[in-house]
Amino acid sequence: MKFMHAVAAVTAIALSSSAMAQAKPEQLIKWRQSVMQVQGWSMARIKANVEGTYNKDQVIQAANILHATADGGLGSLYTAGSEKGSGWHDTQTKPELFTDGEKVREVAMTFSKEANELVRVAATGDAAAVKAQFGKVGQACKGCHDKFRVEEKK
Amino acid sequence: MKFMHAVAAVTAIALSSSAMAQAKPEQLIKWRQSVMQVQGWSMARIKANVEGTYNKDQVIQAANILHATADGGLGSLYTAGSEKGSGWHDTQTKPELFTDGEKVREVAMTFSKEANELVRVAATGDAAAVKAQFGKVGQACKGCHDKFRVEEKK
Repeated sequence: MKFMHAVAAVTAIALSSSAMAQAKPEQLIKWRQSVMQVQGWSMARIKANVEGTYNKDQVIQAANILHATADGGLGSLYTAGSEKGSGWHDTQTKPELFTDGEKVREVAMTFSKEANELVRVAATGDAAAVKAQFGKVGQACKGCHDKFRVEEKK
Repeated sequence: MKFMHAVAAVTAIALSSSAMAQAKPEQLIKWRQSVMQVQGWSMARIKANVEGTYNKDQVIQAANILHATADGGLGSLYTAGSEKGSGWHDTQTKPELFTDGEKVREVAMTFSKEANELVRVAATGDAAAVKAQFGKVGQACKGCHDKFRVEEKK
């Protein structure tokens, strides 16, 4: 089931003729940069919870957002023609993302798997287990960033 | 259950002493502007599906993102001190959002209720029913924007 979710999420990349194909590259880039921010917010919330006062509801909310976006068909935001351009800022996506389908599938499925597991663990309210799984989700984020994201200029 | 979700989402506004209270206003504003974009993306996807070729999986993905963000504790992004400032751009949040708790609660609960219902309808794959519920979600978005969002300068 989880596997199928990930497959559905990733195969959206192939759907360049999808319903959203008419969106302009600038809009697609803005949307994907926004998704990354929302995922960053969710990760920051969980980090604050596992390092500070633990609030089970907050962690569940953040995990659900990570899960929904991980399985949300993000691939449809990386259509041909959006390799270059600017949304909120210049795209940081490397050209390889648009050509290395096998690796994209791999990092996307890892992220989906770990985010799904985070939702499961968050429901238990076990802060230590959440902390451990949070680390795995962070590694999944990093796995994609290392491969497909241009480093931010400092 | 749905009601409780909404309450959990809304009461986060009161938690100015929450784990995320240390985030800078600029970051909070960037995050909330990003959430709005991600919701806009999800709405655009559903619109494209109900007006064009219907893809059940895409609609479910988009509905799940709307649901997860609607119940995601967005109130924690509107803490005291973030009334003014700039994230991706100047905040469009009206000052009333920070003072009119009763109305905020009302619009947030309406959005939560309609997004939850959208998830339920999306699972049926009934395009006509999704179109109708999509309209109700759009009204919920508008209900909040009309009350609490400064119009974009053209």
